[in-house]
Amino acid sequence: MNSVRKFKLQRPTPLSVKEHVAGILNGDRTILSRAITMVESAKTEHRAMAQEIIEQCLPYAGNSIRVGITGVPGVGKSTFIEALGTYLTGKDKQLAVLAIDPTSQKSGGSILGDKTRMEALAADANAFIRPSPASDSLGGVARKTRETIVLCEAAGFDTIFVETVGVGQSETAVHSMVDFFLLLMLAGAGDELQGIKRGIMEMADAIAITKADGDNVKASIAARREYKQALHLFPPTTTGWTPRVATCSSLTNEGIDEVWQLVEEHKLLVSGKGFFEQKRQEQARYWMYETINETLTRRFYDDPKVTHQLQAIEAQVVAGTLSPFAAAQQLLALS
Amino acid sequence: MNSVRKFKLQRPTPLSVKEHVAGILNGDRTILSRAITMVESAKTEHRAMAQEIIEQCLPYAGNSIRVGITGVPGVGKSTFIEALGTYLTGKDKQLAVLAIDPTSQKSGGSILGDKTRMEALAADANAFIRPSPASDSLGGVARKTRETIVLCEAAGFDTIFVETVGVGQSETAVHSMVDFFLLLMLAGAGDELQGIKRGIMEMADAIAITKADGDNVKASIAARREYKQALHLFPPTTTGWTPRVATCSSLTNEGIDEVWQLVEEHKLLVSGKGFFEQKRQEQARYWMYETINETLTRRFYDDPKVTHQLQAIEAQVVAGTLSPFAAAQQLLALS
Repeated sequence: MNSVRKFKLQRPTPLSVKEHVAGILNGDRTILSRAITMVESAKTEHRAMAQEIIEQCLPYAGNSIRVGITGVPGVGKSTFIEALGTYLTGKDKQLAVLAIDPTSQKSGGSILGDKTRMEALAADANAFIRPSPASDSLGGVARKTRETIVLCEAAGFDTIFVETVGVGQSETAVHSMVDFFLLLMLAGAGDELQGIKRGIMEMADAIAITKADGDNVKASIAARREYKQALHLFPPTTTGWTPRVATCSSLTNEGIDEVWQLVEEHKLLVSGKGFFEQKRQEQARYWMYETINETLTRRFYDDPKVTHQLQAIEAQVVAGTLSPFAAAQQLLALS
Repeated sequence: MNSVRKFKLQRPTPLSVKEHVAGILNGDRTILSRAITMVESAKTEHRAMAQEIIEQCLPYAGNSIRVGITGVPGVGKSTFIEALGTYLTGKDKQLAVLAIDPTSQKSGGSILGDKTRMEALAADANAFIRPSPASDSLGGVARKTRETIVLCEAAGFDTIFVETVGVGQSETAVHSMVDFFLLLMLAGAGDELQGIKRGIMEMADAIAITKADGDNVKASIAARREYKQALHLFPPTTTGWTPRVATCSSLTNEGIDEVWQLVEEHKLLVSGKGFFEQKRQEQARYWMYETINETLTRRFYDDPKVTHQLQAIEAQVVAGTLSPFAAAQQLLALS
């Protein structure tokens, strides 16, 4: 009894960078989870070690298809991921489900229930679910998620889902780290659009109309036709891919496979033209510059001299008594 | 003869800040033009003087409607602006037409022919046309245009057009400095969309289908119906305004007045709800932060230590041998 209790309270033995990397490459999920926890840690020594692990995993990463999935609450995102995920693990895919959700900051942690809402996947040996990390900024969450993708790929996951809630700024971040961006929508009279942020639709490689079952089938087919027409009016993508619309039901599984076919069809098209690799290179470049720019601005706004004056100067700009450019010069002169 | 020649060669007498401001408030276009030239100047002493003039004009600015007009080359932007502009000056509006076109950098100056393409407006006593300034960056052009708006408003112009070419990044800048964003489109089989950048359509407060005359009327009406349907699928704006679609002809003037009615209808709606002023305040705040952030990054990338290493480090990121975040840290450590 005593020894069991003692064992339970014991912290896991610290592992070296080498042991972490070996464990990850071996597909050891416990070690993968521990490495991700370090990626998410606020402690400098953890971050430094995480960085070393990532650099050593990097040569083994990249061999996956990364799919961003977004949609407002109520669209049935969890059940859709559960249905599509189970379909894929049934085909022996190794699936990692990650999340970007800066709103979870409020609770100081990741969304509760994410795992419980995906019961089948949570128990699936071919699936790995990791809820959104807590973080003080979208940039922070995005970095952590991108680094987690590297670790998951090195651990052998060939399919990565990155889900986001579809109401904030995180869609641009997700769009910049995936190969395929899927927007979930509900059929309806237009009200279902209330929550979706403008601009997201044009990012989508495909729209999946969810809950196309029972009484809702007819409306879903009508919605598919409408969206198809709307997307046709959009300018074409540089890859030549025309965004597609599908209907599906996570209840009956109808159409779930067709959604996945779109992902594969897209990959085939863009790989053939060299756009798949090119996009990933552009994304890597984007994140380098994004990280630099974010760090530069954070350093500036964290400067006490700037913090001290910012509010008063901004108030003058809003009141129209100081031009935005003169205000910027005044603040820049402080730092 | 001699004295005339001497007069022609003479530089204009330098004016003080006070004389500039008085001239502008008096509606003196020669002085307005000279102040704008200082805003556009690369010389430090000109910029400093321009800044003082702007600050003193600021209390007299803001009393106008600012309309952004975009569309790809070939859509008939100049003739549309000529038609709508002449309609407005005919109603005693005081119209200033400004342009943002970073592509004009190539020639080291503003687009030639801008004024000649708008013959009637160029000769119109109620209109003032100012081509795009030459500049080394979009941020530079945007700042100059925004400051020129302040000067034009102080000079009594109650209607400001800011035109842009619709193929680059300048649309976001224009969208962030106007009250109403108008997208010009052609009816057709979809090919006309080739040039429009994705994302622009969702910024539009209205789409005007141009060249709706002669054999093109039928296609234009069909296009209007299609776009109307497509826009209806977009999420609504926060102001409650639903983007509208109109057809018009700069040849017959048919529909030109209706396009303007949309602008006025929009203003009535958003002013009533307080959104008009709120948006301008948000825009002023946006430009303050935008200027700060742009200056911070420019300072960083101009640092010789950074310039020296940037290319090699970026190459490692693109090759996938260095993570974007580690690369960013390496570069940030240099500065």
